[in-house]
Amino acid sequence: MTADDPTATRGPVHIVGTGLLGTSIALALTARGVSVTLADTSPSMLALARDLGAGTIARADANTASDTGPTPSAAGDAPALVVVAVPPDVTADEVAHALRRFPDAVVTDVASVKSVLLAELHELAAGDPRVELSRYVGSHPMAGREKSGAAAASADLFIGRPWVLAAHEDASERAILTVRALAADAGASLVSMDADEHDDAVALISHVPQLMASLMAAQLVDAPERALALAGQGVRDVTRIAASEPRLWSAILTGNAAAVSPLLRTIRDDLDALVRAIDRAAAEGPLAPGAVAGISRLIAAGNDGVARVPGKHGGARRRYAEVTVLVPDEPGELGRLFSEVGEIGVNIEDFQMEHSPKQKVGMAIVSVTQEAAQPLEQALEQRGWRVVAP
Amino acid sequence: MTADDPTATRGPVHIVGTGLLGTSIALALTARGVSVTLADTSPSMLALARDLGAGTIARADANTASDTGPTPSAAGDAPALVVVAVPPDVTADEVAHALRRFPDAVVTDVASVKSVLLAELHELAAGDPRVELSRYVGSHPMAGREKSGAAAASADLFIGRPWVLAAHEDASERAILTVRALAADAGASLVSMDADEHDDAVALISHVPQLMASLMAAQLVDAPERALALAGQGVRDVTRIAASEPRLWSAILTGNAAAVSPLLRTIRDDLDALVRAIDRAAAEGPLAPGAVAGISRLIAAGNDGVARVPGKHGGARRRYAEVTVLVPDEPGELGRLFSEVGEIGVNIEDFQMEHSPKQKVGMAIVSVTQEAAQPLEQALEQRGWRVVAP
Repeated sequence: MTADDPTATRGPVHIVGTGLLGTSIALALTARGVSVTLADTSPSMLALARDLGAGTIARADANTASDTGPTPSAAGDAPALVVVAVPPDVTADEVAHALRRFPDAVVTDVASVKSVLLAELHELAAGDPRVELSRYVGSHPMAGREKSGAAAASADLFIGRPWVLAAHEDASERAILTVRALAADAGASLVSMDADEHDDAVALISHVPQLMASLMAAQLVDAPERALALAGQGVRDVTRIAASEPRLWSAILTGNAAAVSPLLRTIRDDLDALVRAIDRAAAEGPLAPGAVAGISRLIAAGNDGVARVPGKHGGARRRYAEVTVLVPDEPGELGRLFSEVGEIGVNIEDFQMEHSPKQKVGMAIVSVTQEAAQPLEQALEQRGWRVVAP
Repeated sequence: MTADDPTATRGPVHIVGTGLLGTSIALALTARGVSVTLADTSPSMLALARDLGAGTIARADANTASDTGPTPSAAGDAPALVVVAVPPDVTADEVAHALRRFPDAVVTDVASVKSVLLAELHELAAGDPRVELSRYVGSHPMAGREKSGAAAASADLFIGRPWVLAAHEDASERAILTVRALAADAGASLVSMDADEHDDAVALISHVPQLMASLMAAQLVDAPERALALAGQGVRDVTRIAASEPRLWSAILTGNAAAVSPLLRTIRDDLDALVRAIDRAAAEGPLAPGAVAGISRLIAAGNDGVARVPGKHGGARRRYAEVTVLVPDEPGELGRLFSEVGEIGVNIEDFQMEHSPKQKVGMAIVSVTQEAAQPLEQALEQRGWRVVAP
């Protein structure tokens, strides 16, 4: 479905957890006219999500698993769908709580691990008939960023991204259809997997990359300033996601340890072989037997691996064209650029500044709609800006 | 220097090697009106560089180290500067050849490793008085991309990037000034380091990140299509530079093995500790003693490390304070914000837009100096802007 289709999600939606994912889902649904109530243990996160237009605040008690009070929906209607968007280690409790609390609602979650979660839910269900797992379907929208919290949320976070629906065998038709509709309204493309296939996949394309970024970034903690000043886009990209939340990621990684472990062991074996090759070169010189072969074998395998990563999904930034302009590093210059872009009548969708120490000129990378890009480049050049050829 | 300054490089420049760096340097100099001659062992690369406007083709023999013929400059003038831009493992021979061939020229190279190269050059100089190292200064422009070859070249490649000048003790004043002028004309910011400091720095911020990207990407070679279909921006960024050339990178890594080896060993130790923590969680469950602590310790160290990577503005990210402002999604609003920040007299160090087409409001994250942050927040609120509490 595209954003032009009528809203697929029926009835009010209650979001538990107004972090990055919860607030982004709320923004996407609110934008489609769905009535959304919000709950979070943090009043300030909750207030920010509301101020961003994510929905109305449900009575505060709605977000605590110990609560068993009446329906808290601000609109007074029981939610048709509850989305639990809290850290993985507390997701099972919140899902069970929502199933108890809203006897008619479908409940889903957005946790990055599915097998451990399902096992925990079966335990909780065994002890409590109100925890009806037929009304639960696990899901995992494959969208996120190194920044967390409502402040980083966006209604188009999920556009063109895969949204994994991990239905277990007891899930009802209604539950599955409700979560499919949610993914459609968020603009995501639905992928059906069972919990194990999902967990193996995310270990490879999300969890282990996170650890590699952290392992690299950890080496920079005590690095000399002068060395770090040489950092380019390569090390920035490799380490970008190392800025992720320790609490969230320990929960994800311990929760998916069974799938992550064998991959890490393979990488350690490859690293051992690499260290042997490098040490040979260090001891016997660049042409030491086996050194070049050992290293180029790994680099070549990396070429093959990265070539298999599919092209960009239609994520938000990807839908825009970038216009790069050289801007003198003086107060007001960036403001002048933005004012003139406004005068030209183009809306700035996103913006990035490429800058460097001691450099008198910065590169302003302005993201605009594809149609606006070329006219903007011409108009800016006419106004004397230096536009860098794409 | 900015693009408005007069050309600093004096006299014709001869470029040996029309790959990404050689062609980009040639394009930058040609754009400044410097007369540039080109040489490369590959006639097709050479023709492409010429067709891109990088310069005129020197007689083909100019690029072979065995050649000892007369000056090949198309313009008929001996070059004042020769830039050797060939893979590291053949750089020493080409530098020595250029010193012999052009007895009055300053010679530099752009190789990513400096110590091994200097040792090779001292050997070559010992056997041949024409190899006058006083006319040689090593340099390393810290710019590149995962794409190689003249086709990926750009006159803007070095703008705002560090350009390391690695002068050895015998380098003449003239040689140093000539290479400084080259860096200035390329729009780069000069950094002086000796060969060892340079090699340690690039091992950390370039060579080891390359290996981490390759180690990760190599795991994707046999991955299921359905798993790869879930790939997001995280794994793309971590593996992007894994697309680099095996031949070039084996030469770089064997050439800098002494500096790379200790870093790789530290990473392997960290990885071993991580594997133990993950295995504990896999065997005893997510709450296994030591598991969460072991993992979150690494993620937290990664947070600290990545925070030290200079941001888009060079300085460490955390040197700046972020002021977040809600901005109506209408043309000109962002311009109005920037103009008013200018009126308030605050310089914008960096800027990021958290934005979503279907949202009626975007979040403008303005980075300013720590001192400027609070006054700016107050002034903006007085002007009616909605500032999000940090």
